[in-house]
Amino acid sequence: MPANASLEELIEALRGLPSIGPKAAQRMAYHLLQRDRRGADRLARALDSALQNLHHCTHCNNFTEQAICERCLSTRRDPSQLCIVEMPIDLNSMEQTQAYNGLYYVLMGRLSPLDGIGPKELAFGRLITRATDGVVKEVILATNFTNEGEATAHYLSELLHARGIKVSRIARGLPVGGELEFSDAATVAQALRERRDFD
Amino acid sequence: MPANASLEELIEALRGLPSIGPKAAQRMAYHLLQRDRRGADRLARALDSALQNLHHCTHCNNFTEQAICERCLSTRRDPSQLCIVEMPIDLNSMEQTQAYNGLYYVLMGRLSPLDGIGPKELAFGRLITRATDGVVKEVILATNFTNEGEATAHYLSELLHARGIKVSRIARGLPVGGELEFSDAATVAQALRERRDFD
Ligand SMILES: [Zn+2]
Ligand SMILES: [Zn+2]
Repeated sequence: MPANASLEELIEALRGLPSIGPKAAQRMAYHLLQRDRRGADRLARALDSALQNLHHCTHCNNFTEQAICERCLSTRRDPSQLCIVEMPIDLNSMEQTQAYNGLYYVLMGRLSPLDGIGPKELAFGRLITRATDGVVKEVILATNFTNEGEATAHYLSELLHARGIKVSRIARGLPVGGELEFSDAATVAQALRERRDFD
Repeated sequence: MPANASLEELIEALRGLPSIGPKAAQRMAYHLLQRDRRGADRLARALDSALQNLHHCTHCNNFTEQAICERCLSTRRDPSQLCIVEMPIDLNSMEQTQAYNGLYYVLMGRLSPLDGIGPKELAFGRLITRATDGVVKEVILATNFTNEGEATAHYLSELLHARGIKVSRIARGLPVGGELEFSDAATVAQALRERRDFD
């Protein structure tokens, strides 16, 4: 094989992207070089700019270009509610509901001992400081209902309860439009356990 | 939504990669920023280096850092055979067979009128010049057996035949270890039509 160091390095670097295998990395490299050199240059510039400009909001831990992000600075949001999500993408899901007007804290992950991600890696200390500022009255745990998301919620609820903070968890149940016939048993059981007064 | 221009630009630039949708682009951006900033920087450098250093071999049209690539310069390859493939990845497949010792020409695509890719975009003129150098005795068409790859092979065979060049096409048929029962009818029919004397 001929020595094309820069081609091989590009393919290797693309393989570092999540869920990109060797074949996909090759296709991407050839596509960029042959069909989209402007796109390749744009991506390089975007990576540089993102690495240089983005950091974590000191209030909510989400990515921002400011010291404190616009959402945290907004006077139109209710600072007494603090919703904890795993990732920015989850925050977007919550915002799309237009059903929540409080503030957020983004963990940037979940407890995952097998991946070496514990309370220290997720900087739970900063979260506790944020939640005990005297303004927050309720912390809403909105981590995912995966094993890791559930473990994270339990761990956090203990930390927060110990400091006398009111903690809630978003509900599990059937999806909107969901039918019992087509729901898995665990979800139906959960919907039964978490039933509410019908008013 | 807060204005995070550099984050939005990174997500947009990642969406430009082939077969990456908006959700995957978001996940990639967050992964790079949160878990792999070194990988993000490596990718930016690799893109820059590849754009700067890689161009097309004047002989085979493959990507190379030299004017003429090492394979084309090799004295151990048979210059009387010229195998035409669509993409570098196809060249790699041919090389892995260790059954071919001639030279290559990489089209960097296939005829695809719907995508605006015609003979001009694929620079068939350069290929004809290459194939009529007086040294090449046989052109082996190894484009894929897709509709577009077949159309490309037919188009090229006419161009080359018109210039008195011997043209062959790699065979279709059952795969090695293939069983009729589990092969689609078109492949079996093709294997029948392309049957060879059994010696
Ligand atoms: Zn913030
Ligand atoms: Zn070459």
